[in-house]
Amino acid sequence: MTERRRDRLRERCRDQKVDGYLTFDYSDVFYLSGFPSEGCFLLVSRGGDFLFSPLLLAEQARSIVDRKLSVVTSRKLLKSLESAVRKDGLKKVGYDSAKVTVSLFKSFSSGKGMRWVPLDGFVLKQRMIKDENEIELISQACHATFVSRESTFGLLREGQTEREVARALEGLFFKAGASKTAFETIVAFQENAAYPHHVVSDKKLSPKMAVLMDCGCAFGGYRSDLTRTGFFGKISSQFQKIYGIVKKSQSVGMAAVRPGVTAGKIDFVCREVIRKAGYGDYFVHGTGHGVGLDIHEPPRLGIGSKEVLREGMVVTVEPGIYLPGEFGVRIEDTLLVTKNGCEVLTQ
Amino acid sequence: MTERRRDRLRERCRDQKVDGYLTFDYSDVFYLSGFPSEGCFLLVSRGGDFLFSPLLLAEQARSIVDRKLSVVTSRKLLKSLESAVRKDGLKKVGYDSAKVTVSLFKSFSSGKGMRWVPLDGFVLKQRMIKDENEIELISQACHATFVSRESTFGLLREGQTEREVARALEGLFFKAGASKTAFETIVAFQENAAYPHHVVSDKKLSPKMAVLMDCGCAFGGYRSDLTRTGFFGKISSQFQKIYGIVKKSQSVGMAAVRPGVTAGKIDFVCREVIRKAGYGDYFVHGTGHGVGLDIHEPPRLGIGSKEVLREGMVVTVEPGIYLPGEFGVRIEDTLLVTKNGCEVLTQ
Repeated sequence: MTERRRDRLRERCRDQKVDGYLTFDYSDVFYLSGFPSEGCFLLVSRGGDFLFSPLLLAEQARSIVDRKLSVVTSRKLLKSLESAVRKDGLKKVGYDSAKVTVSLFKSFSSGKGMRWVPLDGFVLKQRMIKDENEIELISQACHATFVSRESTFGLLREGQTEREVARALEGLFFKAGASKTAFETIVAFQENAAYPHHVVSDKKLSPKMAVLMDCGCAFGGYRSDLTRTGFFGKISSQFQKIYGIVKKSQSVGMAAVRPGVTAGKIDFVCREVIRKAGYGDYFVHGTGHGVGLDIHEPPRLGIGSKEVLREGMVVTVEPGIYLPGEFGVRIEDTLLVTKNGCEVLTQ
Repeated sequence: MTERRRDRLRERCRDQKVDGYLTFDYSDVFYLSGFPSEGCFLLVSRGGDFLFSPLLLAEQARSIVDRKLSVVTSRKLLKSLESAVRKDGLKKVGYDSAKVTVSLFKSFSSGKGMRWVPLDGFVLKQRMIKDENEIELISQACHATFVSRESTFGLLREGQTEREVARALEGLFFKAGASKTAFETIVAFQENAAYPHHVVSDKKLSPKMAVLMDCGCAFGGYRSDLTRTGFFGKISSQFQKIYGIVKKSQSVGMAAVRPGVTAGKIDFVCREVIRKAGYGDYFVHGTGHGVGLDIHEPPRLGIGSKEVLREGMVVTVEPGIYLPGEFGVRIEDTLLVTKNGCEVLTQ
């Protein structure tokens, strides 16, 4: 499977008129090699495929990767890269200038007669369209997240802290078979929910509080993303009103997801609902993003995004309204773009 | 406290003859602002201190940072940076070329009459020496890690999987008050322990297995790092032999930790013990690293490292021997360098 992905990447390199592609990105390397570890980098080229691994990981890497991928190890991996490039006579190799640091670039790009071509998000572009196996893993993660959030909400009790709720929720992820959380779990009570990226605190739950949970987990490296905002105790009319607007915005957004539509269009329709209700200034982030090995991947569902949705993409739709000092509401699902529309995976 | 850190950074900028320093690094930004969130960057300069925050985090940032730090927010943060630099007439500003990507650098460095000076690890250098508050948090994390590992080892039972043991261990971290794990917990049984960076699997525990746990947690953002390798059931003579060599290596290394000694020297003395015992080729990584807001910080305790240990540094000493297909042993503690030697924090 990883072999097929590298072959596809090689074809795409030909189309771009480069001899190969070099990536240092953890998720790219995992996607192309099946090897989940830090500190490795990978070269796909017309001369062959190479995983450059530090000494301490080489044994492990060899035990995991397919036969077409050569594991190269040494104390000076960048020197080994230079040799491989020279030996195969590569002249133009692509790399991701948005993932490679200035100093790292300097340290591998000095070879004479070589041109390094910035092709940003080149592997990410391929990763955008998920295959069956990837969709299965994301679905598992999404389902586990949905069920765990539901259970946790049902068990809320007065006096529980945000931290305790977050830990309980994560405990359920692991029980369901998740290998890790997809990102730092957000549990935010009432005014804390007005911060889109609140960090869990020891604030205690008391009646008449909004309870926002933004959470996800990972199965086989693939992630999920779900947000629900509920209310503990008798719902206030203000919460009800804001919730209704966000809910409508999200429904309209989800209904618009299908192949051929631009990602920016989804953002636009969600934003319009909130703007028309008079809360445009309180929706302070983009509407969604792709999800896969990374929690934030292309496409970006934001203002003006021209990326076109295609079958096999997995994206979130997550509008919100944030009233500083009062509370916030965000509703988010992870969706699979299907042939004719989309399927909600977080259920 | 964050204000004092920025003032110190400003002094150091003067010494380096730059007008300020720009950092995009999460931990640097947290260290200098107290604000724990992604997507922000920070400029300390002779014209003042600025935290550049995306719209969705600005409210939250303002509620947390000290008064001397101005929170700047806009839809185009790099434009705002450009304005701030121009307004204050900054001519030479330092940045970390090992943390800034090629494309990011291009997007902020084009201003005329400006020079961007690579000063790699400039904030990290300051972060190497921990203050009392930081040492307190690291100590809490180290103690919680030690106790949790001990308990987990005591409760091991036949048939438990690596994953179950890892989750149990992490559960104890959270019970002890940790906010997160310091890195992906490693639990490795027998031959899996021969991989220094093993990823937890569903392998089941049975008698006569080596059990390696490499784990840590975080308190207030500050991390701990501990490895123990135990044996489940009656200890084999081969395990006992290898364990003895690693234990001796680690003791000799810890005994050598004191101000004035080079980090490379600690690596050397640990390595010598293992080499003389005939296992030099099976110790495939460096001896240790600094620990703080990041799990791997300078100084690097590796071959040839010239960094000199100083009072207030927090470092690990973690030699190991890895026998592919058989088992591995690593023993690691986190230490505080004190005036006359060191203090083991993981206890």
